[in-house]
Amino acid sequence: MKHLPLALTMGDPAGVGADITLKAWMQHAENSTKLPDFFMIADADHLKFMADRLGLYVPIQKITAPCETGSVFAKALPVLHNPLAISAVPGQPDPTNGEAVIKAIQMAVEFTQNEQASAVVTNPIAKSVLYKAGFEFPGHTEYLAHLASPPCTPVMMLACSKLRVVLATVHVSLQEAISSLNTDTICEVARTTHAALKRDFSIPNPILAIAGLNPHAGEGGAMGREEIDIIAPAIERLRGEGIQVKGPMPPDTMFRADALPTYDAAVCMYHDQGLIPIKALDFESGVNATLGLPFVRTSPDHGTAFDIAGTGRASEFSLMAALTMAHQMAQARAAR
Amino acid sequence: MKHLPLALTMGDPAGVGADITLKAWMQHAENSTKLPDFFMIADADHLKFMADRLGLYVPIQKITAPCETGSVFAKALPVLHNPLAISAVPGQPDPTNGEAVIKAIQMAVEFTQNEQASAVVTNPIAKSVLYKAGFEFPGHTEYLAHLASPPCTPVMMLACSKLRVVLATVHVSLQEAISSLNTDTICEVARTTHAALKRDFSIPNPILAIAGLNPHAGEGGAMGREEIDIIAPAIERLRGEGIQVKGPMPPDTMFRADALPTYDAAVCMYHDQGLIPIKALDFESGVNATLGLPFVRTSPDHGTAFDIAGTGRASEFSLMAALTMAHQMAQARAAR
Repeated sequence: MKHLPLALTMGDPAGVGADITLKAWMQHAENSTKLPDFFMIADADHLKFMADRLGLYVPIQKITAPCETGSVFAKALPVLHNPLAISAVPGQPDPTNGEAVIKAIQMAVEFTQNEQASAVVTNPIAKSVLYKAGFEFPGHTEYLAHLASPPCTPVMMLACSKLRVVLATVHVSLQEAISSLNTDTICEVARTTHAALKRDFSIPNPILAIAGLNPHAGEGGAMGREEIDIIAPAIERLRGEGIQVKGPMPPDTMFRADALPTYDAAVCMYHDQGLIPIKALDFESGVNATLGLPFVRTSPDHGTAFDIAGTGRASEFSLMAALTMAHQMAQARAAR
Repeated sequence: MKHLPLALTMGDPAGVGADITLKAWMQHAENSTKLPDFFMIADADHLKFMADRLGLYVPIQKITAPCETGSVFAKALPVLHNPLAISAVPGQPDPTNGEAVIKAIQMAVEFTQNEQASAVVTNPIAKSVLYKAGFEFPGHTEYLAHLASPPCTPVMMLACSKLRVVLATVHVSLQEAISSLNTDTICEVARTTHAALKRDFSIPNPILAIAGLNPHAGEGGAMGREEIDIIAPAIERLRGEGIQVKGPMPPDTMFRADALPTYDAAVCMYHDQGLIPIKALDFESGVNATLGLPFVRTSPDHGTAFDIAGTGRASEFSLMAALTMAHQMAQARAAR
């Protein structure tokens, strides 16, 4: 198996991307937690400035190609220089740098699709800032799906050590989540998740738990009919395709400690149904993985956190978990 | 302060009420966990049958008044005999016994309001069984509110060691939860909760966290307007009344381990928003407390579990937590 490094994007240079990347590399260098080799696509000068500001001794070494990562990583943070248009000030995002932010994502995808990098790991971006720079996608995930060749419909998975969840509806109001819920989408999300659990997580026969929408999963129609009209038909269809599914599960009991070991991923009907338990169970090392892309992509499960950028207070654990998970997923995929 | 015992109802005699009560008393008798004095309003013969069936050495002693509890509790389970109409078979509920189930609740409330018992603790009932016996209330809580003098609008609180949640909407479909959400109800629930935290939990200046409804609490209206139109006005009104409130909080981050210590109770907009994190964080010792009643009432945070009744598999921890919390709440209320 070819040993390829991970490609890590810079994210918004006014956010915590530099903070957590520098801190993560330090953890590795100090042997606290070994990380897989990665290089960062970022402005090397900005990283030096940030390391100084944070008082972190992190040597920054420019590389010109991903293949140089392996010989550098043990002694310095390898950086593929991607210059900013103007100096970035922590906590003060500027659309002027939007082009460089987007370019880092493009480069990471290219390196991965050209087999120079094993997977894409992204630092947080701020959509509202990128919109001002002409970015036209609802978010990171949709942009990555657009860059993918062939383009695809990805599924967002949130994972921590105890639980994996995927979402049938994502960033819409709760009202819209209910009205847009349909059998086809639930089936598509479940199929993509099932395939990814086999391919990227090496689980030979994944079990999916399909959540209900209503309290007690509707209690036989007494508290809502979506389980009967929309979710149960999806379960039946998936079973017909040979996929192991349980449900519709009462949403409040399916995340209990005694229920978690009974399935490999929970298919949730709306954003908070999946994100509340993930963040309650493990708020520091949650990982966001995009399933269904032709390449592996993960990211830390938090945003740019402009309010604490440059202070050193941002935790590096979620990024470290994202790097480790991306490496494991890429290895599983390559081994098939 | 007068030392009064807790009044524990039998619940559905075909459910796990006897199992968990006998097991809880054993824990106390074996000194594993000391419980406050309580008596059970139940059929003494059924309890003896259940103790035999479960192989538990629990002496059952009939008492004729709550005041006898103290002298009995150390050596036997004190039971105020409330005969069943027909023998109860674990796992096979029978509406014929519905009258006795309801009578136990009535007696517990009377003893508490007559100052013979310190609080009401209820074992689980099955509404569908009681409906066949002519019961006309949506549930336990509403029936207790009806029995209360004066009648009142109670608030359901779920509590574990890490978190307390109250619900602005309860057993309705998610669609109905959204359409029925309104500023007045949120304020009423918050006020009752605030008063109960002071009176029953001895928290001098309670802080309430009011949840948003939508992902990221709507992100300024981009994903739903309920935060702006309904929840923020409630927060403003409550602040005007001198109540400390935070919010609207993004629902997925407010239950993170680092957020929990920043408030005393979460006011949730719908059933699963509150119950998912409670059960994920502590599925065995969650307690259901009814706030706003003229007496203290708690119950274990689970149902009749007919499928495991009589097997000994039901965990007694939630009932034990309910007994302990009822005692603490009654003491706090009496000390004022």
